[in-house]
Amino acid sequence: MSGSLTIVGLGPGAVELTTPAAQQALQSATDLVGYETYVARVPVIEGQRRHASDNRVEVERARHALALAADGRRVAVVSSGDPGVFAMAAAVFEAVETGDAAWRALDIRVEPGITAMLAAAAHAGAPIGGDFCAISLSDNLKSWETIGRRLAAAASADFVIALYNPASKARPHQLARAFELLRRHKSAATVVVFVRAAGTPDATLRITTLADASSVPADMRTLVIIGSSTTRLIERGNAAPFVYTPRAEGRRP
Amino acid sequence: MSGSLTIVGLGPGAVELTTPAAQQALQSATDLVGYETYVARVPVIEGQRRHASDNRVEVERARHALALAADGRRVAVVSSGDPGVFAMAAAVFEAVETGDAAWRALDIRVEPGITAMLAAAAHAGAPIGGDFCAISLSDNLKSWETIGRRLAAAASADFVIALYNPASKARPHQLARAFELLRRHKSAATVVVFVRAAGTPDATLRITTLADASSVPADMRTLVIIGSSTTRLIERGNAAPFVYTPRAEGRRP
Repeated sequence: MSGSLTIVGLGPGAVELTTPAAQQALQSATDLVGYETYVARVPVIEGQRRHASDNRVEVERARHALALAADGRRVAVVSSGDPGVFAMAAAVFEAVETGDAAWRALDIRVEPGITAMLAAAAHAGAPIGGDFCAISLSDNLKSWETIGRRLAAAASADFVIALYNPASKARPHQLARAFELLRRHKSAATVVVFVRAAGTPDATLRITTLADASSVPADMRTLVIIGSSTTRLIERGNAAPFVYTPRAEGRRP
Repeated sequence: MSGSLTIVGLGPGAVELTTPAAQQALQSATDLVGYETYVARVPVIEGQRRHASDNRVEVERARHALALAADGRRVAVVSSGDPGVFAMAAAVFEAVETGDAAWRALDIRVEPGITAMLAAAAHAGAPIGGDFCAISLSDNLKSWETIGRRLAAAASADFVIALYNPASKARPHQLARAFELLRRHKSAATVVVFVRAAGTPDATLRITTLADASSVPADMRTLVIIGSSTTRLIERGNAAPFVYTPRAEGRRP
């Protein structure tokens, strides 16, 4: 089979944060497949077919993309952020594993991108200065029990914690539950950062503490970073403070 | 003060993985500051000053960069990967916190980059399909006890685990100790991936199990990914298998 499929990380939003390798993969594709919001971010190229869908079943979209590649097309599956972090790459490989055996012979690649956590951290300073965890709060694909167990483990070992998908209309209460759980393991004064629309011109930053974090609004475009015990602020008068976590443990203020 | 300092993530190596925003920050700088290996990756621009050093004391390098910015220069501090992940951003903010109070008024920004973990994961498939942790095995800045506690917590909560700085000439034995510790918490059949020089033309991939992982060589250019209980291979005949972690928990083979 001569077709190919590349899962392309667009990065967090601004085109200046899409790598040249990702842009090249988009430009050389005969077909773009993806969620309509992400496909809309790619400049139109004459003759390139666009298969935008509002279908939220990622594995169905992946199967469609694989079938196109098996037909000899050069397919780019567009993904926000990095395809390997809470995005389309795992869905494509799930479809490969359970689908037509011939799909395994396809040229399938992943083009990495700037994931939301990195753009959010850059916006705040250097909150991820040491070891860290990333947890999706969506319980569509795993139980709340698993999420809670991971939050507790991350807190007890003093990781910096990045929360993806902190809240949606269907799940308005998980984030408050997560903060409540974390308060059992971490100081109420722990620094918490909310970055919405990180890596876009609309990016906003809120800095608070674990004690007050539940009062800050969050949605699917928000990335929440909960500091370790050493995460701190550098005050700057009228400007927003820098948030950072020293590289060395034990460097408390 | 009119000077500025941008901590620029070059990404893992290939210039096609350096974002346009990072390239723009490098091109508009009057001064480049960084470890010589990373400064050497930036194309020479006439009139731009290059302050390359083999000094491994990152905070000293950061102070030098801040002093240049305070003198009115437009400084780019070059960092491999993403500046916020085991790289230069935290060192710069440590220098700001402990240095000249006037440095707090400088325009200091972070330009994110593709960190090694994302490039390594892309090379293997989608090994980071769900919640994950990243841990540096370097014990220059933290104790082995802390590293061990974090490894145990990450394993017990079934995170995918990415290990940065797995081994150096000065620390040849930590990685084997880490695998030994992980074997107390995880199945010997757990998938382990070694990617060396991820995101460069020289990238190499080794796929093994936790039982056999200690026999695979690793150095400072290696990124090690230890799967969760559901991480698995998709065999492809003569080609390297795809490694992936399903998005949903409990989808075991």
